[in-house]
Amino acid sequence: MRLVSGIFVCYFTTLTKISGDTVRKIVLAISAWIPAMWASASPYQIQHVEPMNWWVGMKRPDLQVMVHGEKIGELEAALSYPGVRVASVERTDNPNYLFVNLKISKDAKPGELKLQFKRGKQVVVSQPYRLEARRPQSAQRTSFDSSDAIYLLMPDRFSNGDATNDVAGMLEGSDRKDPTKRHGGDLAGMQAQLDYVRDLGFTMIWPTPLLENNQPTYSYHGYSLTDYYKIDPRFGSNEDFRNYVAAANARGIGVIHDIVLNHIGTGHWWMKDMPAADWINHGKTFLPTNNQHTVAQDIHVAPEEKARFFDGWFVETMPDMNQRNKLVARYLIQNTLWWIEYANLSGIREDTYSYSDPAFLNDWNRAVVEEYPKMNIVGEEMDARPHMVAYWQKGVINRDGYKSELPTVMDFPLSDTAPLALTAPESSGQGLIKIYEILAADYLYADPMKLMVFPDNHDRPRILAQVDNNVDLMKTNLILMATTRGIPQMFYGTEIMIGSPKQRDDGVLRADMPGGWAGDKVNAFSGAGLSDGQRDMQNLVRKLFNWRKTSSAVKHGKLTHYLPHENTYVYFRHDGKQTVMVVLNKNPGASQLDLKRFAGMIKNALTAKDVLTGATVDLRSPLTLPAMTSVVLAW
Amino acid sequence: MRLVSGIFVCYFTTLTKISGDTVRKIVLAISAWIPAMWASASPYQIQHVEPMNWWVGMKRPDLQVMVHGEKIGELEAALSYPGVRVASVERTDNPNYLFVNLKISKDAKPGELKLQFKRGKQVVVSQPYRLEARRPQSAQRTSFDSSDAIYLLMPDRFSNGDATNDVAGMLEGSDRKDPTKRHGGDLAGMQAQLDYVRDLGFTMIWPTPLLENNQPTYSYHGYSLTDYYKIDPRFGSNEDFRNYVAAANARGIGVIHDIVLNHIGTGHWWMKDMPAADWINHGKTFLPTNNQHTVAQDIHVAPEEKARFFDGWFVETMPDMNQRNKLVARYLIQNTLWWIEYANLSGIREDTYSYSDPAFLNDWNRAVVEEYPKMNIVGEEMDARPHMVAYWQKGVINRDGYKSELPTVMDFPLSDTAPLALTAPESSGQGLIKIYEILAADYLYADPMKLMVFPDNHDRPRILAQVDNNVDLMKTNLILMATTRGIPQMFYGTEIMIGSPKQRDDGVLRADMPGGWAGDKVNAFSGAGLSDGQRDMQNLVRKLFNWRKTSSAVKHGKLTHYLPHENTYVYFRHDGKQTVMVVLNKNPGASQLDLKRFAGMIKNALTAKDVLTGATVDLRSPLTLPAMTSVVLAW
Repeated sequence: MRLVSGIFVCYFTTLTKISGDTVRKIVLAISAWIPAMWASASPYQIQHVEPMNWWVGMKRPDLQVMVHGEKIGELEAALSYPGVRVASVERTDNPNYLFVNLKISKDAKPGELKLQFKRGKQVVVSQPYRLEARRPQSAQRTSFDSSDAIYLLMPDRFSNGDATNDVAGMLEGSDRKDPTKRHGGDLAGMQAQLDYVRDLGFTMIWPTPLLENNQPTYSYHGYSLTDYYKIDPRFGSNEDFRNYVAAANARGIGVIHDIVLNHIGTGHWWMKDMPAADWINHGKTFLPTNNQHTVAQDIHVAPEEKARFFDGWFVETMPDMNQRNKLVARYLIQNTLWWIEYANLSGIREDTYSYSDPAFLNDWNRAVVEEYPKMNIVGEEMDARPHMVAYWQKGVINRDGYKSELPTVMDFPLSDTAPLALTAPESSGQGLIKIYEILAADYLYADPMKLMVFPDNHDRPRILAQVDNNVDLMKTNLILMATTRGIPQMFYGTEIMIGSPKQRDDGVLRADMPGGWAGDKVNAFSGAGLSDGQRDMQNLVRKLFNWRKTSSAVKHGKLTHYLPHENTYVYFRHDGKQTVMVVLNKNPGASQLDLKRFAGMIKNALTAKDVLTGATVDLRSPLTLPAMTSVVLAW
Repeated sequence: MRLVSGIFVCYFTTLTKISGDTVRKIVLAISAWIPAMWASASPYQIQHVEPMNWWVGMKRPDLQVMVHGEKIGELEAALSYPGVRVASVERTDNPNYLFVNLKISKDAKPGELKLQFKRGKQVVVSQPYRLEARRPQSAQRTSFDSSDAIYLLMPDRFSNGDATNDVAGMLEGSDRKDPTKRHGGDLAGMQAQLDYVRDLGFTMIWPTPLLENNQPTYSYHGYSLTDYYKIDPRFGSNEDFRNYVAAANARGIGVIHDIVLNHIGTGHWWMKDMPAADWINHGKTFLPTNNQHTVAQDIHVAPEEKARFFDGWFVETMPDMNQRNKLVARYLIQNTLWWIEYANLSGIREDTYSYSDPAFLNDWNRAVVEEYPKMNIVGEEMDARPHMVAYWQKGVINRDGYKSELPTVMDFPLSDTAPLALTAPESSGQGLIKIYEILAADYLYADPMKLMVFPDNHDRPRILAQVDNNVDLMKTNLILMATTRGIPQMFYGTEIMIGSPKQRDDGVLRADMPGGWAGDKVNAFSGAGLSDGQRDMQNLVRKLFNWRKTSSAVKHGKLTHYLPHENTYVYFRHDGKQTVMVVLNKNPGASQLDLKRFAGMIKNALTAKDVLTGATVDLRSPLTLPAMTSVVLAW
């Protein structure tokens, strides 16, 4: 209705330009009631047009517009606009959908065209459609890589900058006392804390999904999308998101968009009027996935198990998208491109990666990189086995013939192993050797420098809990993640030691960032009320990641490591210009580390700087290590 | 000395043919004392010639003969024999060695030639050298594959057929009371039990190494070779071994030779007069390997760690061979070929595979397959991670560029995982799913059908101990290993449930086979004195492996498996001619298995035969499973 009204205002306004002032006044007077009357009389009503706009100058000239409205599928599509034409339309078994395939030539100029829907020669309904100009150098934008550090935050839990939008007319409101409910965080809050994130030393922000999740319960996490094209009003508007990205960019920070291709939320408007019978796997009926990630690779798997993994629903509230339906695939691909272009994004993170159709995933990656050749995309394969994660990285030659197009994978093997290794006793086959061995498996990847490494994230117990609340071990873990190969990512609140139960408890580990809500007694952003320990950890993070920005060896250098020995694990990052020596140290008392063993890396260097204390260290003598203290030296 | 005397008898006898009867008599009279006198006067004495003989008609015309003797390196080599010539000689920094490179043409006939060693034009010493004829079709011999089942035995612990050779003039005698000492088992005993092994259903025997281990202590296991060309006299002679293989072959059993390329024993004669300063890594000085198997793959490893792994000694009594020395490499390659040809072997097993030089290993494999194109070789990479084992299988494309030439690898991942999976409770991520997941990783291998699978071996606690002495779980483990993809191998005594501590204790788990020694009260071979439980297990093994010989689906068919469900793991082997359904069952009480889930595999089959009970089973009804009993059905 809203759209239809708009169209008619527009239509009559255009008329007035032709007919002069008199007609114009009459038309304006009746334009308030005519459209409503006409619309209710017509059987054709446009309810959704997606994407809502597009851009000229994209590499790929094709655009497929999904048009949803009562019996719209009975009509033909037409338009008249220089350089743009309707190439074809596609229909499904649901007459309420029409997919209009446009060709947009290189010469097409920005502007507004009219999509006309005709019965025979008669235009029955029409729809203005804007083609925007792209930002300069939009296609050549840079993305995240190992020179970046990523701050992961959960919008609902980070900062409530606008208390007026906590409900915003949605099904679920805010109840901060319940860890499983929404707490009111939003884009306004995120934007207010951009300086804080920048000052910690981060160059990228990955917010968990911001799109609408109009689900009756458990909607705070954002992974049950109910609208692919709309920021959840409880976070703000599309425009607010675009402004947030611009504000981040102005501070040298890029934004990574968290995309969900595998499933939607049951509250998505599609579920009331399915675009096609096979739009959702198993239709409207919940059948759970078997969660058996190995089916993608397994050469022995029974076909029934394979189908059950890919087509089963993630949970009962998340219907599974059938990406083998080409219309679904195109819809999802365009949606990703739309957000990159609309909001000026610097990267993509894709959720539950291996659950989606593997052939579709490659098409999706290729389409993104076709438009944005430098764009990085990180996919989530939540598995602790390096070979399982490596399977999905672009450039890996898999025995089963699958060649993934995904550039970056999340290093769950290192993330899950490190705290176990740190808390285990140092004995044969246990302890630091487990970290060493995970890195020794890097030959399985096409490019280990493109792995995203992280102490924890929103799907893991807080790192403090994982290391049994041992602050020294937590610092060692952070030092590891900030200095080993790959792209470090830190979860918000780690810097002030937000804890959690050791058993994963999502609502609790995704705790509110103190200071993000008016009246909070402790304020992580200002530092007010932080304990000495929290302040100390925050300083460590700030020092480490700000230093990292300046370290060519850590950002791009080679990694060379030595076998753990006497409760220490020593590795080097080096690029010919700089050498960084990292000592992960679990010695319970002060100890001396003989540096002769590392002569091949130290070479002729005489002194180094201790990155965290600022002290100068003699490399010709044994290194004194304080108890349980890991050290980063650079020269 | 012995050799030198022989040469001179020969030399003077040749002279008499030229000089007539008178001279002949004089020469004969003095030939008894002259050689001894001459020899002690001469500085040139041949102490070792290896290989001791060779064959005509080998594909590769080159042969390198190592000649060891006081100052032999000062001499030149010559010979006169149709089709054979000295191509060159090679010397090292030790003048007591000369490496004579022969070219043996395709036309050369079997016979004895004289290797002559000259100073200038004078033959100072000479050595008869036999070129033998090969067996018909020797090069085209077949080897072991998934249609075989392998019986692994330890010669010292299997059967003492000849009590007179228990010491045989060697440093270590026999003391059956001490599990770490020799017990007297030998080839005569092994030969006496060939019918037993055949009747159990095995088609291959892998004895642990039979070559001389003249070490003062801990020599029983055979992995500290002190002579690469000699069967340990406590097992018998080279001729005895050849006869043993012939007797096995006559029963349809092939013999797999256990070869050690990585190291020798400190008692090897080389250690008293090293062929070259770099023959052994680190010379005569013990420096242990770091045992870090990952160095072979690790793209980050410090060069010092890599060297330490490959060049360090396995243990103090096992000096590490430097296979980068081309003379060492050639020596080892020829030794393998020699034993295949001499003893008529059907397969090779290579010890501590990844510890040897990777480039050499490929040369060695290629050389064996060059001469014996159908020969299978199995290498030991003792690691529970499929990607670590897969790295070494021929056909795997490794990211670091290494292309292994080894056809078969040992499936330690499955072997180590299965008992843990069987004894764990069936809960999320635990239990039978772990077996499923190991098999789901088969895509990492080039050819999973060439994996050697085994309940246990001589380096693992006995399978009975690994499954917490649960006889039902042990049966399930045996059924798994006999029916999953790959080449099954069973360790001697498993069939009568020899146990061990759960912690690995080599001397104990390598227990004497009862009945292998005169006076044993229990006799596994005759069945006398076995408990009902032992007899039951022996019957299971006999039934399973004899049936396996007849099952095309198990020997060569595809594997298709279903996710574990309700304490069962179900998989199928199928080849279009036969379908075998295996149910690994951990249900503590009798249960019903709904077969509808497997309709895709069962198809139109109505009934099946229970392989172990002989019963006919209706495939249209739920399958009744007795408590803790695994089932094999075939149709």
